[in-house]
Amino acid sequence: MDKIVRVNMSTLTSSNESVPEAWAGLGGRAMTSTIVAEEVPPTCHPLGVNNKLVFAIGLLSGTSAASSGRLCGGAKSPLTGTIKESNVGGTAARQLARLGIRALIIEGMPPGDAWYNISVTKDGITIQEETALMGAGNFAVADGVRARYGDRVGVMSVGPVGEMRMALANISVRDPEGKLRSMGRGGLGAVMGSKRIKFIVIDDTGTPAAVPLHDPEKFKAAGKRFTKTLQEHPVTGQGLPTYGTAVLVNVINEAGGLPTRNFTQGQFTAHDAISGETIHDTIVARGGKPKHGCHAGCVIQCSQVYNDADGKYLTSGFEYETIWGLGANCCVDVLDDIALADNILDDIGGDSIEAAVMFGVAMEAGVLEFGDGKEMCRMLREEIGKGTPLGRVLGGGAANVGRIYGLTRVPVVKGQGIPAYDPRSIKGIGVTYATSTMGADHTAGYSITTNILNVGGHIDPLKKEGQIELSRNLQIATAAVDSTGMCIFIAFPGLDIPDCLAALVDMINARFGISLTMDDVINLGKYVLKTEHKFNLAAGFSNEHDRLPEFFSLEPLAPHDAIWDFTGEELDTFWNF
Amino acid sequence: MDKIVRVNMSTLTSSNESVPEAWAGLGGRAMTSTIVAEEVPPTCHPLGVNNKLVFAIGLLSGTSAASSGRLCGGAKSPLTGTIKESNVGGTAARQLARLGIRALIIEGMPPGDAWYNISVTKDGITIQEETALMGAGNFAVADGVRARYGDRVGVMSVGPVGEMRMALANISVRDPEGKLRSMGRGGLGAVMGSKRIKFIVIDDTGTPAAVPLHDPEKFKAAGKRFTKTLQEHPVTGQGLPTYGTAVLVNVINEAGGLPTRNFTQGQFTAHDAISGETIHDTIVARGGKPKHGCHAGCVIQCSQVYNDADGKYLTSGFEYETIWGLGANCCVDVLDDIALADNILDDIGGDSIEAAVMFGVAMEAGVLEFGDGKEMCRMLREEIGKGTPLGRVLGGGAANVGRIYGLTRVPVVKGQGIPAYDPRSIKGIGVTYATSTMGADHTAGYSITTNILNVGGHIDPLKKEGQIELSRNLQIATAAVDSTGMCIFIAFPGLDIPDCLAALVDMINARFGISLTMDDVINLGKYVLKTEHKFNLAAGFSNEHDRLPEFFSLEPLAPHDAIWDFTGEELDTFWNF
Repeated sequence: MDKIVRVNMSTLTSSNESVPEAWAGLGGRAMTSTIVAEEVPPTCHPLGVNNKLVFAIGLLSGTSAASSGRLCGGAKSPLTGTIKESNVGGTAARQLARLGIRALIIEGMPPGDAWYNISVTKDGITIQEETALMGAGNFAVADGVRARYGDRVGVMSVGPVGEMRMALANISVRDPEGKLRSMGRGGLGAVMGSKRIKFIVIDDTGTPAAVPLHDPEKFKAAGKRFTKTLQEHPVTGQGLPTYGTAVLVNVINEAGGLPTRNFTQGQFTAHDAISGETIHDTIVARGGKPKHGCHAGCVIQCSQVYNDADGKYLTSGFEYETIWGLGANCCVDVLDDIALADNILDDIGGDSIEAAVMFGVAMEAGVLEFGDGKEMCRMLREEIGKGTPLGRVLGGGAANVGRIYGLTRVPVVKGQGIPAYDPRSIKGIGVTYATSTMGADHTAGYSITTNILNVGGHIDPLKKEGQIELSRNLQIATAAVDSTGMCIFIAFPGLDIPDCLAALVDMINARFGISLTMDDVINLGKYVLKTEHKFNLAAGFSNEHDRLPEFFSLEPLAPHDAIWDFTGEELDTFWNF
Repeated sequence: MDKIVRVNMSTLTSSNESVPEAWAGLGGRAMTSTIVAEEVPPTCHPLGVNNKLVFAIGLLSGTSAASSGRLCGGAKSPLTGTIKESNVGGTAARQLARLGIRALIIEGMPPGDAWYNISVTKDGITIQEETALMGAGNFAVADGVRARYGDRVGVMSVGPVGEMRMALANISVRDPEGKLRSMGRGGLGAVMGSKRIKFIVIDDTGTPAAVPLHDPEKFKAAGKRFTKTLQEHPVTGQGLPTYGTAVLVNVINEAGGLPTRNFTQGQFTAHDAISGETIHDTIVARGGKPKHGCHAGCVIQCSQVYNDADGKYLTSGFEYETIWGLGANCCVDVLDDIALADNILDDIGGDSIEAAVMFGVAMEAGVLEFGDGKEMCRMLREEIGKGTPLGRVLGGGAANVGRIYGLTRVPVVKGQGIPAYDPRSIKGIGVTYATSTMGADHTAGYSITTNILNVGGHIDPLKKEGQIELSRNLQIATAAVDSTGMCIFIAFPGLDIPDCLAALVDMINARFGISLTMDDVINLGKYVLKTEHKFNLAAGFSNEHDRLPEFFSLEPLAPHDAIWDFTGEELDTFWNF
């Protein structure tokens, strides 16, 4: 029987509720954003007693649907002050689904100074004081939890960065092989830290192997069609499995949209040193894994295992965003330095995108030199990881560093660092950065598809025409996909192969015995965006926050001499739906 | 002939303009806010090329009117992101008035890395590269400028804090005796630093001794009546001249509204050690000056010269706000530590209110111990003054420290630290903090008059009734007074003795040969507030920013167990005029 589980950290108690009628059709981001919008006062302090940390599985979590293993987390963000949803692979979504837990809502704040762990099993919730693993990095936590609870358990944890409630903090989730995935953006780890929860362990022992399906045969048939589209599309079937997301390094560099040296250039001369092709060859030469899934049932396998020169594990889930950011944006061209930084970020529990944008700003401030990957790693481990004053500065994220050093070239929207595509030369993604309810977020409406990859048609990235509509349609579709538990990469076949989304809808219908249409799914996406936007307005955001930083309009970007030239009035039309 | 002078730092040129018709009746805050609202894009970066730093004299500056020597500075604030006006005593207002300069507008930003000084004389503006005094504190700058330009000159400068563009940075202005006054709030020193101006020297040699008056006799008669009201009122005639503003320590402590230990208590057990009475006796015993004017022609003389135990100068302009904040709010009960901190803040160029609120938060974060005044002084000099990483954290102000250490008890509104009156037990001032266009600012609408001092009647500080009207009326009146160049303390007789404001209006009429009425003055105040509010809305502020921090509604304050209980709807009625 599906349920909502509440954990009250003020009283250290928990309770189960049946899923309210109004939430029955919601999953993932639709669920987290609905709960946050209904239950969290928009003007509350994000690290205070009135914020709530909500985890929600998707509509297809726990089924055999390909690439359906994403778990959503939501709260009011301490980084942006907006509503926030961030999602992650790993085993947790599937395990919560098997336990029948559609959403886990963590509220309140413990009295005193003690820290806690939360254990989730078929017998219910146990909240225990935690001492042994306090201060530990996420790798040690994952190992320690497995030693204590067994190998099968899922783990969600915060590292020292989350314990210290830095805005950089992510939530780490174990993947099927015991490696770490990150619910990265928006500082959700600081919210978990504010509630003084070091880790959540999920043990689905004693539950059925899969969630119940209303119509198993229909589900199986739709699932096959769906998987076929993922395998047939060149991006999800070939590009991502072969080179991972870092396949984009050369593509975006060629387009002149690879932000370099803190967003002062659109191309990185050393792009080859950090490209997906180079990474692939390096992984193969060192005996790593060029393909790897972040969750069971993933057919895209964009992750990988990257070893060091001695063939020892260095990092996994080594994403384009991280590589771009710690690489090109910081002028670091030594791949192993970037990989080590990624590993340290996994361990201390920091978002690699925010860290990358932050280091670009810190380098401009003269805190360290552009190109000094070794010093970057030292600062991650010794300053941020240990909470020195400098570490606190850096751990506050890019906007924080910019403010503290009095800089004007600070690439953030609503306080969140701008990811790996320059909005001057790829304008559709700029519209997404400006208008997303999440602050700057490429995944919210990934226009790179149509601006650069010619997926879903083509819209010239350097021109304004069509970008707002593109971003709007993608943001609506993404909000819907984020509610299913699906990986956002299904959008590639989704945009090009009509049967992809049709099969997705058929799976949802077969799972629940309902009869959603494509229009219903689009309406769900619109509902999610409007719910989030309403929360943000009530939290004090206005149209004037749906803007890019001033410097994008003042400084043309080579090689296209591109400038950000959308007016506020134009951007505000985004919300006309 | 009165004029507007523009200095363009991008081209290192200046120009004179006659005063536009629309600005002819404006002075002080009305002038700065009008110019900022008309010429600064509300969403620009406060430290960027599009912000402007505007200095404006008041309508009565340069005349013999008592207490008319205040100079206003305005810009978009790097601390709050709002429009900002901050005013200051010293000699600059009078000297600019004698030079016929109604407003000095500094725009643009120099190319390259060089720093500059600006010299203002009857022959015009000279912009020169500055090297010798770079890095120097404000005392050394004032001395160095006098050595270079002569003893008579006025000086406005930034210390290292302003050079480093920290949000804590103020602008220092020389007083008639060569001591320093501060244009303190809102980080205007960082704006001056962003334009790479170390100091502005004003030499009024060769100008008439006073500004021309349209009707000298009428002016003289009105001036006498005006001065009489200042001398007759118990606050401006006795309390302030005898004990300075620190007369309030015991008064506010008795009322249970003296924020103590980072706003966790409303009374400080050691209040006697830092009271106005103790300060007065200490000053007298050590051969200091218990009375001292911040500008020529001041009849209130609330400033003083405070010597150390050896009878050597320690500080002046030692205000209640500073003493409360570095004292009670930080649990420091050693007056000499507080005086030394005040002196260091004058020298490095930091706002003492923001510093005080910031240290309270930093002490709660464990950065230093509550009560450790020696360490506070060391951090001011060695960390903030030298821009170490910790200094950067602290120099970012209270909101910054709260964000970086993940705290929830952070007493700020719109990013600016809340001054010396707890809004839970003195609710009128809470309305001012919440609704002021400036962020938390007690001078914007000083309800302490009527809530505590029974000036202008009495409204129970612990009840909600009448507070919004009180704050509204005071904010309107203050915006008008801030436009005259008058010290805000004229509000005491202004509220109690009808002839005070009548005489003020008569002086303005006699100065310009116009016939303003009292209604015109009130309308000027309303115009100023609405102009500022409109700028803030266009900069992205909304009703939800006109709120106090959540903790004031969650934590009752002893001894009255008072809570902040205004709803957002109630606060929003402030703007109904």
